[in-house]
Amino acid sequence: MLPKAVSEYLEANRDAHLAKLKEFIAFPSIANSRPEQCARCAEWLAGHMESLGLSARVEAGGGPPNVIAEARVDDAAPTLLIYGHYDVQPPEPLDEWRTEPFDAVVTDRCLWGRGASDDKGQLFAHLAAIEAWQRAGGGLPVNVKLLVEGAEEIGSPHMEAFLSAHADELSADAAIISDGEFFADGVPAITYALRGLAYVEVTFRGPAADIHSGLHGGAVTNPIDSLARLVGALHDADGRVALEGYYDDVLALSDDERRRWRELPFDAAAYGRSLGLDALGGGEAGFTPLERRWGRPTLDCNGIVGGYTGEGSKTIIPASASVKVSMRLVPDQDPEKVVAAFRRFVAAHTPRGIASEVKVNAEARPVLLAAESAAMDAGRAALTEAFAAAPAMIRCGASVPITELIQRLLGLDAVLMGFGLPDDNLHSPNERFRLGQLFGGMTACAAFLNRLREGLTRGGKSG
Amino acid sequence: MLPKAVSEYLEANRDAHLAKLKEFIAFPSIANSRPEQCARCAEWLAGHMESLGLSARVEAGGGPPNVIAEARVDDAAPTLLIYGHYDVQPPEPLDEWRTEPFDAVVTDRCLWGRGASDDKGQLFAHLAAIEAWQRAGGGLPVNVKLLVEGAEEIGSPHMEAFLSAHADELSADAAIISDGEFFADGVPAITYALRGLAYVEVTFRGPAADIHSGLHGGAVTNPIDSLARLVGALHDADGRVALEGYYDDVLALSDDERRRWRELPFDAAAYGRSLGLDALGGGEAGFTPLERRWGRPTLDCNGIVGGYTGEGSKTIIPASASVKVSMRLVPDQDPEKVVAAFRRFVAAHTPRGIASEVKVNAEARPVLLAAESAAMDAGRAALTEAFAAAPAMIRCGASVPITELIQRLLGLDAVLMGFGLPDDNLHSPNERFRLGQLFGGMTACAAFLNRLREGLTRGGKSG
Repeated sequence: MLPKAVSEYLEANRDAHLAKLKEFIAFPSIANSRPEQCARCAEWLAGHMESLGLSARVEAGGGPPNVIAEARVDDAAPTLLIYGHYDVQPPEPLDEWRTEPFDAVVTDRCLWGRGASDDKGQLFAHLAAIEAWQRAGGGLPVNVKLLVEGAEEIGSPHMEAFLSAHADELSADAAIISDGEFFADGVPAITYALRGLAYVEVTFRGPAADIHSGLHGGAVTNPIDSLARLVGALHDADGRVALEGYYDDVLALSDDERRRWRELPFDAAAYGRSLGLDALGGGEAGFTPLERRWGRPTLDCNGIVGGYTGEGSKTIIPASASVKVSMRLVPDQDPEKVVAAFRRFVAAHTPRGIASEVKVNAEARPVLLAAESAAMDAGRAALTEAFAAAPAMIRCGASVPITELIQRLLGLDAVLMGFGLPDDNLHSPNERFRLGQLFGGMTACAAFLNRLREGLTRGGKSG
Repeated sequence: MLPKAVSEYLEANRDAHLAKLKEFIAFPSIANSRPEQCARCAEWLAGHMESLGLSARVEAGGGPPNVIAEARVDDAAPTLLIYGHYDVQPPEPLDEWRTEPFDAVVTDRCLWGRGASDDKGQLFAHLAAIEAWQRAGGGLPVNVKLLVEGAEEIGSPHMEAFLSAHADELSADAAIISDGEFFADGVPAITYALRGLAYVEVTFRGPAADIHSGLHGGAVTNPIDSLARLVGALHDADGRVALEGYYDDVLALSDDERRRWRELPFDAAAYGRSLGLDALGGGEAGFTPLERRWGRPTLDCNGIVGGYTGEGSKTIIPASASVKVSMRLVPDQDPEKVVAAFRRFVAAHTPRGIASEVKVNAEARPVLLAAESAAMDAGRAALTEAFAAAPAMIRCGASVPITELIQRLLGLDAVLMGFGLPDDNLHSPNERFRLGQLFGGMTACAAFLNRLREGLTRGGKSG
């Protein structure tokens, strides 16, 4: 159990922690569009870590910089690597926010703001736990290393090279990533698999400029119509992705896994309503909604644009149209093979009169983690201690590219233990983090350090 | 032949006319987005007409106002109704213009600016012709009425009601519309048919807000994917529009008409190159490019938008996506029947988990005009006199809704006699009007008034 002094410190400092977290959220640290704000946010973060007694530094990482920090307490003690990211999703559409996305506010027992949960708030839970041990617990129970990324929301394009270059420095006995969520309110969870990602962008170009659709319509191939036809062909009538060989490397779900998921407290209709949907619909035939989200690969358009998009009418055949497409991949699919199949599909669906271009925005491999280890045990115990409920073992449909990189480059199966809730509006307007989850998360992070020392000292060091 | 004084007046006043036309172009009179500029432009136009000795007034028309003017010279003389429009297409995309769209400039023997040809420049040719007759020709040879519209580029939504209400006041013996073009450089033309228009906008709505495509992808129907599938289904494999009954009312092209079009000097490859296309492609199987543009109905997407359209990646399933679709109709298709078929098609292609909405932006009936009349003869003679070449009798793929309204409500088959050239970049960046066409157009308009008096006085009054 957590020393009383640590618990009491966390309880006594809730307002101070909220104030500090609001400072963190105030940076619009969007990897693609606000590099200067990312750099400022990284400096702020390193400064805050230094104030907690860590040695911290900002490291250039190809795009927005990363932050590396360390607190070495005892060479004989196990070492934990904590990963988080300080970059956030763009806040658009802005007019749908009820509060300012980068001026976080507390109402209705929630903290509202971009990054409140994903991932500034969850990373902050670890920082508060470290602070509590340092200032009230007599020092950290384990050696701690931190890696905080600045480009997770754009697919971590430079992290593989960065982690390779810093593999020795970041080596550890266990790793934890808090960039996820509970299965449901009151049901904590540890995630043992994540989907990968292949994110591409297709542009179709037709006439040199927008041209009059009355004068020329019928004689000229329309880039929007053609692109829509391509997108429409990307799924078959059963909702399966139509790329050649797309399912060849998909690891089938076991009967046992499917049975355990069916036993989870999941109400598909209520889930649909939580997203504002009367009906779920869509998806691959033959699988339940949870199976489709966690264990089956998908393809979704994330954005499309072409021609006149203002109010009213403009009668043109546009010069071009483009679409962003992301594919979520499951073990053992390979993003590079998938992208190659996508390129072939586009080539085969580019009509006469159109020039096509495919750009790859991001790739991440899917990952499957060992569910049994001393670190996993520590995670389960910490969650049970903090939230008085045993965690479910689940998968997650999202991609956290660092997980696979830590597995492959550092040889560690990270503990994926998140504190958000499914209705936190991640990547959406009105992102929020419930205060109970934030403060419970701090307790869980503090307990995890303790449990990890016990587990790894007793059971030997193993990720 | 035109009196020498009239010709000389036009020649002597070219610089003054260009300066005045630039004033006209300087108003960004875009019907949808700039109502205040439309109102100012209408006032300017009425003022200019008054200065030419016409009685002119601005009339509210439901949207941007219309301008009505008249010069009555002789109750025994025939009366001509001249139609034009002062509204213009939006200038976007702005970064593709080499000059300012509303600050017209003369270079390379062209006038460059939005509306230079469509339709401010062509309307101005009539005003210059009227001016020349009034100031140098001893007064107008016929009674003249003018109707200048402010909402042609958005499909003339209020013109039917307006023309009905002003039918007596605008009654005439003949009508002329100069809102078109030559068949080719050196080949003047009179247009005897126009396509109609049904312009609709479809919105697909899914989740209440943009949601995380990793967490939810697979379980939620994606509005972009669904809309693309609908758009992709709007044409069949032969390039035919897939709406039920779409071709039922289509008047077949006669063998004679097809033969005459094949004899026109048209080079499909050169036409494609003029639009920046390596290959034409697309279109309905079994018809030539000219037949597809002039005599067959089409369906084109004019704009599509949904989800994240900024730089780089955002991993969302968007709340909604929408597309603008315009259908060009030929005699005897009925826009209302076509819109009803479109609505049924959307309903049948709206998947579970999506709510659809169809908005009708514009409707215009196709029109076929009598090719033989005293007014047509006057048009042919005037073009031959001004450009030293006999005009071709052609159709046009665009819609000029007033033509059908003048036919139906005033009982007049207008003479469609335009002075633009096919590469004037109508509705595109870098719209232009060649000076030779502008000044030749002034001469043709002046000659038309003269020829019309002769023709209608000799042959009796008939449209």
